[in-house]
Amino acid sequence: MKIGLIGVGLIGGSMALKLKEKKFTSEIIAFDKSDVHLQTAKERQIIDRISSFEGLIKNSQIIIIALPVEATKVVLLEVLDRISDKQIVMDVGSTKHEISKIVDNHPKRKNYVASHPMWGTEHSGPNAATVDAFSNRAAVICNPEDSYDFAIEYVKQIYENLDMNILYMDAEKHDMHTAYISHISHITSYALANTVLEKEREEDTIFQLASSGFSSTVRLAKSHPEMWVPIFKQNKENVLDVLNEHISQLKKFKSALEKENFEFLEELILNANKIRGILDK
Amino acid sequence: MKIGLIGVGLIGGSMALKLKEKKFTSEIIAFDKSDVHLQTAKERQIIDRISSFEGLIKNSQIIIIALPVEATKVVLLEVLDRISDKQIVMDVGSTKHEISKIVDNHPKRKNYVASHPMWGTEHSGPNAATVDAFSNRAAVICNPEDSYDFAIEYVKQIYENLDMNILYMDAEKHDMHTAYISHISHITSYALANTVLEKEREEDTIFQLASSGFSSTVRLAKSHPEMWVPIFKQNKENVLDVLNEHISQLKKFKSALEKENFEFLEELILNANKIRGILDK
Repeated sequence: MKIGLIGVGLIGGSMALKLKEKKFTSEIIAFDKSDVHLQTAKERQIIDRISSFEGLIKNSQIIIIALPVEATKVVLLEVLDRISDKQIVMDVGSTKHEISKIVDNHPKRKNYVASHPMWGTEHSGPNAATVDAFSNRAAVICNPEDSYDFAIEYVKQIYENLDMNILYMDAEKHDMHTAYISHISHITSYALANTVLEKEREEDTIFQLASSGFSSTVRLAKSHPEMWVPIFKQNKENVLDVLNEHISQLKKFKSALEKENFEFLEELILNANKIRGILDK
Repeated sequence: MKIGLIGVGLIGGSMALKLKEKKFTSEIIAFDKSDVHLQTAKERQIIDRISSFEGLIKNSQIIIIALPVEATKVVLLEVLDRISDKQIVMDVGSTKHEISKIVDNHPKRKNYVASHPMWGTEHSGPNAATVDAFSNRAAVICNPEDSYDFAIEYVKQIYENLDMNILYMDAEKHDMHTAYISHISHITSYALANTVLEKEREEDTIFQLASSGFSSTVRLAKSHPEMWVPIFKQNKENVLDVLNEHISQLKKFKSALEKENFEFLEELILNANKIRGILDK
């Protein structure tokens, strides 16, 4: 079973490492616009063979598109235009609605499976790829009714081999949920980093004092714009909706402090503490 | 060398564990208003002996106050009123200006060392105490000129035995820096948790989808109000200052999204990425 991997970054690379370890694939054929990334991936034995775009499509049973989500929209159409009835295409992007919509009327729509393995770090590129990245995390497969059963079955096997928990979800719902669970965290981290960089001119002091709490809250602020600008663009409405709510929640803290209403401040914190019961089930 | 520990929670307990491991102390005598905490600390061998408040002061060479910062203000005065010229008192609270100010004119002021070991987790109580909590983190000693040299020397030895990096800082400056580095992270985490709890009614979905990014950004939202309301109260002006800046930074993201100004969005993210260079020195 040959896998064609378009994009050998953190996500594609980590998938490839695990699928090879599980001997799920006989060969991983890779294409990437970055020669440096391809060479690194080859040296780390993440991939078996570097190929042209056309060669990859011709020789792979399943094609995994692991690119930033705006590039995914373009490349997905190019792949669908070229595959046979028996080939499968999947993407792993963090947004699903726009990507699914763009292929709605494509004659090969049913050969495509829209999915999102929910893992990532602030790092990128094949050097950051790691074999057990996805274990025990959620993999979302969107709108399975729009894909052939054999395609869904195959993608399911991939995520099972990555040791992930598979969920099925409508693409629009997926984007709404990920705005809350993932996208807003990145915006708050970015804004927090910018706040500190704006207010704190003594860089050495930031570095010396930074406690584990600060590091974990601001960790996502290291994430690259090449990945995140396209996500925010595609999920604009949901992200704005959550961002507005977040600003109004912060204003409640501001108001409690300004009015020295410490009972209200305590209430706000006790409410936030409820997240413990949800996350630590 | 006998240490009197007032408050056997996460911080006091973790300090005691390490100081015992290093054999820095012959006995840890403890007082806490919670009998449950005292019993747990005794069972875990965090402390050697439970004592009355008066008994603890009488029998300890150094007294460590490890309480929430409002309680620290009260207890510190009570301790200073009772100690001899040769005894030392230190606190470990997250705010330093108000606590230092309150003892400014106390005849025993020079027996007191204001300090802040910069570590914590979202957990609390002696069950959460851990022996290597403080290793390689910063310990701030404030206004050392207001303390006897022998007192500073002793507190320095304590932090050295906790394997911490010692910094000296003016108490007002400490509170300004910690507002940026620590206190604001807690408010953004609390507000993020409240945002998700407000917007996301499907609790199971939060739990299933929560990726590592979300968990790390929202982790601090599990922290208890008993500790954090007093910190925000004492550091109100600095926290408000940073919170206002943070809200205005978030509004830049909002504006970039609303206007679909993705170049500006990229700029904001690239600026935030600079935190990488500061944290990963």
